[in-house]
This record gives sequence, C-alpha cells and structure tokens, in this order.
Amino acid sequence: MKSVHPIILAHGGAGSRVMTSPQAACLQAALQVGYHLLDRGSTSLLAVEQTIRVLERSGLFNAGKGARLQLDGVQRMDASIMEGDHLSAGAVASIEGIIHPITAARLVMEETDHVLLVGPLATKFAGYFKMERHQLRTSPYRLSYGAMLKRKGSSRNRHGTVGAVALDRTGTVAAAASTGGIDRMLPGRVGDTPIIGCGVYADNATGAVSMTGWGESIMRVAVAKEICDRLAQVKTPARAARLVLQKLVARIDGSAGCLVLTPKGRFTIRHSTPHMMAGWWDGKREPTLGDRFL
Amino acid sequence: MKSVHPIILAHGGAGSRVMTSPQAACLQAALQVGYHLLDRGSTSLLAVEQTIRVLERSGLFNAGKGARLQLDGVQRMDASIMEGDHLSAGAVASIEGIIHPITAARLVMEETDHVLLVGPLATKFAGYFKMERHQLRTSPYRLSYGAMLKRKGSSRNRHGTVGAVALDRTGTVAAAASTGGIDRMLPGRVGDTPIIGCGVYADNATGAVSMTGWGESIMRVAVAKEICDRLAQVKTPARAARLVLQKLVARIDGSAGCLVLTPKGRFTIRHSTPHMMAGWWDGKREPTLGDRFL
Repeated sequence: MKSVHPIILAHGGAGSRVMTSPQAACLQAALQVGYHLLDRGSTSLLAVEQTIRVLERSGLFNAGKGARLQLDGVQRMDASIMEGDHLSAGAVASIEGIIHPITAARLVMEETDHVLLVGPLATKFAGYFKMERHQLRTSPYRLSYGAMLKRKGSSRNRHGTVGAVALDRTGTVAAAASTGGIDRMLPGRVGDTPIIGCGVYADNATGAVSMTGWGESIMRVAVAKEICDRLAQVKTPARAARLVLQKLVARIDGSAGCLVLTPKGRFTIRHSTPHMMAGWWDGKREPTLGDRFL
Repeated sequence: MKSVHPIILAHGGAGSRVMTSPQAACLQAALQVGYHLLDRGSTSLLAVEQTIRVLERSGLFNAGKGARLQLDGVQRMDASIMEGDHLSAGAVASIEGIIHPITAARLVMEETDHVLLVGPLATKFAGYFKMERHQLRTSPYRLSYGAMLKRKGSSRNRHGTVGAVALDRTGTVAAAASTGGIDRMLPGRVGDTPIIGCGVYADNATGAVSMTGWGESIMRVAVAKEICDRLAQVKTPARAARLVLQKLVARIDGSAGCLVLTPKGRFTIRHSTPHMMAGWWDGKREPTLGDRFL
C-alpha cells in the first residue's frame, strides 16, 4: 500500500479575539506533538487526541483546564473523537472535574459499545478509568433558575473550542474537538462539540472536519456532516467549506470556523468569524500559524 | 400562498418484533391526533409533538412511560424536535421522571437559546416548567461499574424509539423522536434520538427525517442529515433512504428504520430490520398501518 504524507491541523477557537503569543506557542507545540506521532507511524486518532491534550492542559483555551463556567458556577465540558476507516466514534458531554475530556471520549469509543455518555454518569465513567482530575474552578453565582433562563439570547459571541484533524500514513483521517462550552450558558447545555455530524465528522470516503463557533447554529445545520457530504460533490475542501459556511450565515445568521482535511491531504481552514486561531504542519519547514484564514 | 395538503407519519420502533393490536390501535390514535391538528391549520411542529405525546403516554412503546431501564435500574429518556422553516430545534438527553420528554425538547427550543440540555440539569429544567412527572420504575440491579462495562457488545438488537414527521398547510415539515434508549445500556448512554442530524432532521429545502434502530450505528453515519442531503440529489425519498440505509448496513453492519417526508408530500417508510411498526395518514380513507414496509 502506498504511504501517504501525514499532516495535522489544529485550532484554538473562532471568534472576535486575536491570538496571544502564549496561545500561538501552545498551538505550535500541539501541532508538533501530533505531527511527530504521525511521522513515526502512529494513527491519526492518536495524533488528534494527543494534540488536543496539549491544548486542554494549557489552560489557555476554553477546554480542559481553561473551561468556562456554566451559570451555576460549575465547569462542564464536552469532547468527541472519530476516525474515518471504521467510522468509530466516542464522545462525552457535560462531564466534570477532569483535565482531558478528549481521552474520556476515546475511552467511550474503545471501552464501551456506545458513542456518547453524558452528565454525572460520564464523570463516573471517567472515575472508573482513574482519569486525571483537577481542582474545579467555582464561582459565587447564586442565580435562581428563572434568572438564568432570562439570560438567553446573549451567548452567540462567547464561545470557544479546540479541535484537530489529521491524516496518517495509511490514509486514514481523524477528527476531534473539546470545549468548555459558552459563557453564561444554562447548566446542562451541550453544544455542537460532542455531537457526531455537528462538531466533528470523519470518513475516509470524504474527509475529516472539526468545527468551532456558535454551537447552536452549527447543530441546526449539522455542519460537519454536510461539509463531508459536499466533499463528495465539489472539487476542493475550500469550496465545500465555503458553501456550507455561507449557508449557515445566510439561512440562520450562524457563525463558525472549520478545519477540513481529505484523505488525499488537501485541506482548508475557513471561518465566518473575524478571527480563528489555527495552524497546520506537514513536517516541512515550520508549522504555519495564524488567526485569520479568509 | 398555495395551500399544501397535510400529512403525518409516525412509528413505534424498528426491530425484530411484530406489532401487537394495542400498539396498532395506539399508533392509529396518534396519527389521528396529529392529522386533525394539521387539518385545522396547526403547525407540523405541534402535530409531531402531540402525536409523540400519545405514544409516550401509552406505555406501549419504549418512550415516556414505557421507557427501558439503564443498567443501574433507572429510566433515562431522550427526545428531539425540529422544524424545517427556520431550522429551529430542541432536545433533551438522559432526562428522568417525566412522561413527555418530547415537550421538554420543545421547551428547550422555545424557552432557551440552546438546542440540547442533558442529565439531571435537563430534569431540573423540566421541573422549572412543572412538567408532569410519573413514578419511576426501578429495578433491583446492583452491578459494579466494571460488571456493567463487561456487558458491552450485546445491545444492538434491543432498542426502540417512537418518531413522527409531518407536513403542514404552509409547506413546513417537522420531525420528532422520543426514546427510553436500549436495554442494559450503561448509565448515561445517549443514542441517536436527541441528536440533530442523527435521529432527526428537518429542512424545508429537502425534507424531514425521523430515525429508529441501533442508535450507535445511526450516529456514526449521521443518518438523518445524510438522507436530507441526498434528497437534494436524487429523485425520490425512497431512493435517498435506500442509498443511506444500504450504506449503513454495508459499511458498519448498522441497522435502522426511517420515516422520510418532503415538503411536496412525497414520503417513504423504510427499514433494514425485519419489522418496523409505522403508519401514515393524509386524511383520506383510514390511516395506513403496518409492521413491514420493505
């Protein structure tokens, strides 16, 4: 079998913020970790997991240690992972108290016959596997449920996610995403990140996609799956991504950024937001990093 | 604007079981409730919600009162609802102690700016809206987490869902689904039912889809979204459904049944399982019911 040249893409969220130097350095380190694994023949699944772990552990992004608080003052996190050969996938939603939700997602994929575990029972699952915990940040919020509900309608610009897609030497693609959700969301709210077909999708017949942005709008269009479906019809990943992001904006005033990578190594980074912190590396020269890819 | 002739389709699950007389009677009553609403000019969203409520309340299907128990002996339920005009959607997962998860899903859609709430916090949300509760069935299961995990690999044929799709006089389609999950699943497991793009999808540009079957396989293909995407490319709903179900079976040995309805009123009921309890009514003659539509 012909060996494929590996590549990895990663992002630290799309929105209105520009990338700081520490964020750029962390994203570069994450890409290096992922690429070196691919270079030594590891699977794209392992590469995206380990890349995400660097970002989760940094506390610099809205994922893992840096996760936002929900309106009751608790951090709850979501993550998902998928590989394109067998369409295997795993995800956790509304999980608490661990540093690496992405690894919990991979454990769901490999240790159960399920795809998604949620809530305190996902936390219990992580506990069974003795996953590394961290001190919960808590806030003094003491809002009534009615007061929390009234905060609706103001969350579209306060979000963030980390994500990665990779292609390994066997030609298999993988996608992953991890998030602490959006600021001031209702307790128990889950966005696109842990939803297969919304936040991530990977299929060797089309490609791998990892999304970030306003999660509710991404879910209502099931963006990751639609980009993959369109990869089968149009010539370039850039065109597939552009068509679906344009639809997202025109149809429901949505907002998102994406990483898209095909099994042939063609890729695009696109966003409808002012900025998207992202980068890629194929082992040649230095990793490419930026916060604007339009 | 030209008025469209309304129609509603509903199902009580796909699998190896044939339909009993009480189930057929309940499905017929549910179709009548939904169709009469459409006939009087109600939205397809209201019609699918009220149709599902009849099925949830009956206790005859794996949803609402009839929901299965998870391995810790607790009923946890999932539901979702979506309409095709604004692509508005709402869902709940792993919710406990209420009779009508489908109405909780609609409340998420209409009373929050979120799409999905999960776990005890979804139950709390339902409590805030004073949703009707019912006595939890509990079982004496006392398994260790390790023992629960070892039960994996045996759940593919023990599932069930109820679902509906409808077309109203304005030409808007809607889709809904509600389930108690699969027998003997890990606590906190969530299947395709509350996942937009997997268990349901609705878009006036293509059509409405409601899925049932082996949830994990449906999630890995994001079936509802792919059927909708294919409706834009092929001539009939039957062909779109057949192509995607064939792929589901061939690629990952999956198993599913679907209701598919276009804004022009063309529809299909298809399943890869031996049976699917389903029916439809457009107000002419009697509702059509069956448990085999291949």
